[in-house]
Amino acid sequence: MEFGAFLTSAGINIGLCMVLFSLYSILRKQPSNRVVYFGRRLASVRIRNDDFFFIDRFVPSPNWIVKAWETTEEEIIKIGGLDALAFQRMLIFSIRIFAIAAIVCLLLVLPMNYYGKEMQHKQIPAESLDVFTIGNVKEGSKWLWAHCLSLYVISFTTCILLFLEYKSITEMRLAHITKAPLNPSHFTILVRSIPWTPHESYSDSVKKFFTNYYASSYLSHQMVYQRGILQKLMLDAGEMCKMIIPNSISGKSLRPYCVCVTNTTSFKILTSEPEIVKEPISYADIDLVTRENECAAAFVFFKTRYTAVVAAQMLQSSNPMLWVTELAPEPHDVFWSNLSISYRQLWLRKIATLLAAIVFMFLFLIPVTFVQGLTQLDKLSKTFPFLRGLLKKDYMRRVITGYLPSVILMLFLYTVPPMMMLFSSMEGHVSRSERKRSAGLKILYFTIWNVFFVNVLSGSVIRQLNVFTSFRDIPKELAKAIPKQASFFMTYVLTSGWASLACEVMQLFPFSYNMFKKFILRIQEDSSEDLMSFPYHTEVPRVLVFGLIGFTCAIMAPLILPFMLVHFFLAYLVYRNQILNVYIPKYEGEGRFWPIFHNTTIFSLVLSQIIAIGVFGMKESPIASSFMFPLVICTILFNEYCRHRFSPIFQKDAVEVLIDMDRRDEQSGKMNEIYQQLHSAYCQIPIATQNFCESVHKCNTFNDIESIQSGLEHSEVSEVGGVSQVSEGSEPWAIVNLERESPIIRI
Amino acid sequence: MEFGAFLTSAGINIGLCMVLFSLYSILRKQPSNRVVYFGRRLASVRIRNDDFFFIDRFVPSPNWIVKAWETTEEEIIKIGGLDALAFQRMLIFSIRIFAIAAIVCLLLVLPMNYYGKEMQHKQIPAESLDVFTIGNVKEGSKWLWAHCLSLYVISFTTCILLFLEYKSITEMRLAHITKAPLNPSHFTILVRSIPWTPHESYSDSVKKFFTNYYASSYLSHQMVYQRGILQKLMLDAGEMCKMIIPNSISGKSLRPYCVCVTNTTSFKILTSEPEIVKEPISYADIDLVTRENECAAAFVFFKTRYTAVVAAQMLQSSNPMLWVTELAPEPHDVFWSNLSISYRQLWLRKIATLLAAIVFMFLFLIPVTFVQGLTQLDKLSKTFPFLRGLLKKDYMRRVITGYLPSVILMLFLYTVPPMMMLFSSMEGHVSRSERKRSAGLKILYFTIWNVFFVNVLSGSVIRQLNVFTSFRDIPKELAKAIPKQASFFMTYVLTSGWASLACEVMQLFPFSYNMFKKFILRIQEDSSEDLMSFPYHTEVPRVLVFGLIGFTCAIMAPLILPFMLVHFFLAYLVYRNQILNVYIPKYEGEGRFWPIFHNTTIFSLVLSQIIAIGVFGMKESPIASSFMFPLVICTILFNEYCRHRFSPIFQKDAVEVLIDMDRRDEQSGKMNEIYQQLHSAYCQIPIATQNFCESVHKCNTFNDIESIQSGLEHSEVSEVGGVSQVSEGSEPWAIVNLERESPIIRI
Repeated sequence: MEFGAFLTSAGINIGLCMVLFSLYSILRKQPSNRVVYFGRRLASVRIRNDDFFFIDRFVPSPNWIVKAWETTEEEIIKIGGLDALAFQRMLIFSIRIFAIAAIVCLLLVLPMNYYGKEMQHKQIPAESLDVFTIGNVKEGSKWLWAHCLSLYVISFTTCILLFLEYKSITEMRLAHITKAPLNPSHFTILVRSIPWTPHESYSDSVKKFFTNYYASSYLSHQMVYQRGILQKLMLDAGEMCKMIIPNSISGKSLRPYCVCVTNTTSFKILTSEPEIVKEPISYADIDLVTRENECAAAFVFFKTRYTAVVAAQMLQSSNPMLWVTELAPEPHDVFWSNLSISYRQLWLRKIATLLAAIVFMFLFLIPVTFVQGLTQLDKLSKTFPFLRGLLKKDYMRRVITGYLPSVILMLFLYTVPPMMMLFSSMEGHVSRSERKRSAGLKILYFTIWNVFFVNVLSGSVIRQLNVFTSFRDIPKELAKAIPKQASFFMTYVLTSGWASLACEVMQLFPFSYNMFKKFILRIQEDSSEDLMSFPYHTEVPRVLVFGLIGFTCAIMAPLILPFMLVHFFLAYLVYRNQILNVYIPKYEGEGRFWPIFHNTTIFSLVLSQIIAIGVFGMKESPIASSFMFPLVICTILFNEYCRHRFSPIFQKDAVEVLIDMDRRDEQSGKMNEIYQQLHSAYCQIPIATQNFCESVHKCNTFNDIESIQSGLEHSEVSEVGGVSQVSEGSEPWAIVNLERESPIIRI
Repeated sequence: MEFGAFLTSAGINIGLCMVLFSLYSILRKQPSNRVVYFGRRLASVRIRNDDFFFIDRFVPSPNWIVKAWETTEEEIIKIGGLDALAFQRMLIFSIRIFAIAAIVCLLLVLPMNYYGKEMQHKQIPAESLDVFTIGNVKEGSKWLWAHCLSLYVISFTTCILLFLEYKSITEMRLAHITKAPLNPSHFTILVRSIPWTPHESYSDSVKKFFTNYYASSYLSHQMVYQRGILQKLMLDAGEMCKMIIPNSISGKSLRPYCVCVTNTTSFKILTSEPEIVKEPISYADIDLVTRENECAAAFVFFKTRYTAVVAAQMLQSSNPMLWVTELAPEPHDVFWSNLSISYRQLWLRKIATLLAAIVFMFLFLIPVTFVQGLTQLDKLSKTFPFLRGLLKKDYMRRVITGYLPSVILMLFLYTVPPMMMLFSSMEGHVSRSERKRSAGLKILYFTIWNVFFVNVLSGSVIRQLNVFTSFRDIPKELAKAIPKQASFFMTYVLTSGWASLACEVMQLFPFSYNMFKKFILRIQEDSSEDLMSFPYHTEVPRVLVFGLIGFTCAIMAPLILPFMLVHFFLAYLVYRNQILNVYIPKYEGEGRFWPIFHNTTIFSLVLSQIIAIGVFGMKESPIASSFMFPLVICTILFNEYCRHRFSPIFQKDAVEVLIDMDRRDEQSGKMNEIYQQLHSAYCQIPIATQNFCESVHKCNTFNDIESIQSGLEHSEVSEVGGVSQVSEGSEPWAIVNLERESPIIRI
């Protein structure tokens, strides 16, 4: 690709970005779009309804950039939680390291590349991009020392920065856990695979087991019930309300105990005669969820954080497939539908989804190979002869070679997050955060494989497989391919990077949905269900893949670095703005994405060093090549150190911290308050039921049951992952307890 | 190789085995060899000294075989512990599975191989061994179904047997833990990496930390001291005794408090004037081991087993590299010299030894390649022209091709266990059992790589590396090579298998040492330091490698199976005899070798299935080949199930079991007794010091200090690992407490 073609591509992108950002600054001022662009604020603050017309609403302004820039870390952590801050830190780390890499490589490496061969240089726009890559340095050149030195500088800076960041994130994580207000999940464990005994309900088994072995610390427990039963109950409740409300309109006030539940898990109406209703209902008569409807899973509450963690970490039974315990996720983080999955299935499910994900990864090669074909014009005109006339035009050629391939790749990539989220749901994770983390990892592997390796080692599907059957040739093959693919990666940064940031800030999907809802369905009211949580599972892999491209291209094709830097800077601003205004944190992930970021960055660094070994070998500079080996070893040792020093903190809580927190709460006398909250923290009935019941309460006199029911049906919140719409099941859940002690539905 | 040459080799071996076994049955009757052949019995029972001559002593007899056969499992577990029983079960499993494989393959597969091609068969002794392998089946033959079916039968039987054995071993392990008498290690954890605080000793830090966070369960603790200090103290004690004993001969009796220790960590003699000695020595004056000599490690004792396990499994500090806890090994199992290694070094040591072991593995290729060269006579006569005359003799040719190669390989292999033991010591394991397990794993990987893969894929060193750079070709290459190498493996079974069993029962090294000691050094007394513990780290890998050869050769060259079966049967008898008579169990490993056995057997099975895919592919039977895939998947799924169902029990103790044991002991009132024993269980001073002091007590009047001192110097017990002599450091250790409370050396 020529430098000119590349500039065309850059121009298109910069223009597009400018247009989209300006459009955004206008659209965000329109009151009808508030739910799209200020979802988080809407959820926390009541904004006054100033719908009147003023000119300022239609003039683009850079206000949002200033606001995003000015926000402090404390505000970010308060608004978005530790996950948001960790994500910010990833971007800041990327900006820092690529700023240093850009300075070193543009000053030291780029001139070496450009003047690497004795040749007649054309004017720069007409120059091929290859002239700026390491491919232009002649064999046995002494200038390769510059590349070697640059890689040393980059590697050491990366390690130092990574260490400092890891340290600071772990400290913040610890501080965050210590200072956090009451978190019921700290006192709760999830027990699965409760053994079935013929003459006992699961609930009794749990009580017996924990009063026996954890007598001093066991507080109470709460069973998980089968999902189908709850849905049936809710439908019945809807029916009941329909029947009751006309009665209540006729003057009689509804009593809180007007509906009770029989043993057959359906509702029946008590006679409306006051004398019968006034009789107190004996709890013994009522069995909301009979023994058959219990799942072999329960939440068990403990008196202190420490004892809960102990119970979660120990092996309970001499049969490791019974009484499996783990720390419970936060109440809003629980993925209820997976709780009823039998524990014995889990390992099979994990293997099955792993296989499915691998198959998906390889089937994806087909569109990617097609995309790759598009960059070669002669192939294209052979396959589609009718395009030949079009392809002769100089401008079209530039667009097609410089822009189209990565757009098509990007569009295909949009199918990946929903697929991976589906796989992760099937895997049986019990928390949304864990599911998101698992999907994030899958997307990361997928993107690294399909965007990086397959594109680098382009060619037919069969050739790619051949390349990977040979261990030793990998560095050589990569070394050959990366300088050649530099132009592809540069356009990839522009399209998938810049343009997707613009799409992110524009929120194209929610915006269109909102428009459709307001102007076609004519629903003016904004519902809180439209709010989304931050799609870390797509955005963290995106940052990481750009990092991988940056590291591997840094000394090979340093021209990519300024674009990379601009990308990360834009990302920094855009995501800050989004965290401030759009996404609400539904649960606290406590920065668990950071170890993934750390490990993948080390992987990228080591990969770039291994590729450098291959390149220096090919350029007949064996000394520079052998100078790379200690660098690889040092990087791996550094990673091992970090793995020992920091990563356990992200997996387990320390006794010191737990006991100190317990003592603090005991001394301040908060414990009893906490215990009371615990009982109602985990509830399997979706919030919609409560809303629904509250609504019934409110609208006792006016009869719009239909609209309430439609609210019930829409209660499944969908989460938009970056660009693709991914259903996270039904969330959030209400603070309504389903324990046996409260079998009466409050209306 | 011809069948005749193979029979020669077999003949030599059978003869050699017969001679050695007969010799053994005579030698064991000689009273002078008792310490070699009845070490364990000698240690437990006092045998009367019937040194008079009778003719029966010089007639070979099969008594020992009968006795070994008749021993029950209960006796084995009582005598050798669970490890011995698990090892017996490995042999029984191997006998069972190869009996079934032999029946199936000899009846079904062998005729198919022999008549696989239309050819003129010679007389059987003149027939090449290749005729009996799958190599003789013609391409596209329908008879390959027999091989496929046999492999199905073998795989399913293996899985069923493995499952039953794993289940029974875990049950026995649980029963063993529950029924076992007091084990101090159940109440003790090892704390390492205690943080350094300027104004506090490590001991104070430990006390402060555990009284703070484990107030209700912490009992006491015991510091680990630097090794050099203790050695200096012992030398000083020797000096002191020399000076004291002449005095005591003069009539004054030694008082137990005649020697005390000053702050400078050396001894001084109190004045022998009775009035001064009678004054009680204040503990405050004495500081046996000053703060500078403490290591950052300590044993911490807890009140119950449960709390000890909790403390061992939890992350203690928010810096995961401080206050690192693990369950303490048994007192006799502690590897004291590694306790003083800083915890921060451990990860570096692990990486370094891993690298060293890998380098050693590859350097070993050189002798193996040489050995391989010997099997090719034409190469040999080219390299050593002077041998040409010798090689022309038919008998010599048979010996060289059939026997010599595996003998040389075996001799080289004798260097491996000491090296691997050294690597494992350097790795920093704190217990002998863990060190042995780690060395066993290293030896296993080493043997599988060097005996199996390198021999199978024989050729030059460079070609071997080339083979392994190509993934997909591995099954094909193995499929080509294994039938060809069948004759090598058969002789390997005969030499390394049968002959090494004869060497094992003969105890060649200890026997020669005993002879040297008794007839040249003229030391008639048997010392208990000559007793050895069972070399599981060499014997388990040996069983596993034979299993691997058996599984992979079963359908390729079924002729190997009868020899394999005889080998395992002999091994069963020999090792039973050795467990009964020779080896003493110094600590309880609790069957931790079983998961290694299970996993490696699954690996062998899957490898043989993958090789079968390659063979069926080569023989142009794609349907049989594709029928193998479900088998591979099923085997891997079975292994995953076992990994979830059984292996956690070998890593963690279950709460149920621990608490039940604690309650039992509390109810029976044994706890106080246990606490008292705990304080003296772990002692860093070797037992020799106590022996030495006891001896001084005894020989108060006769003056043979020199002989006692020589005993002190010999107190480092050496452990003979199969064949090679591996020093396990100095063991066993005395029940003498080095706590501050007992600063007086008891004489």
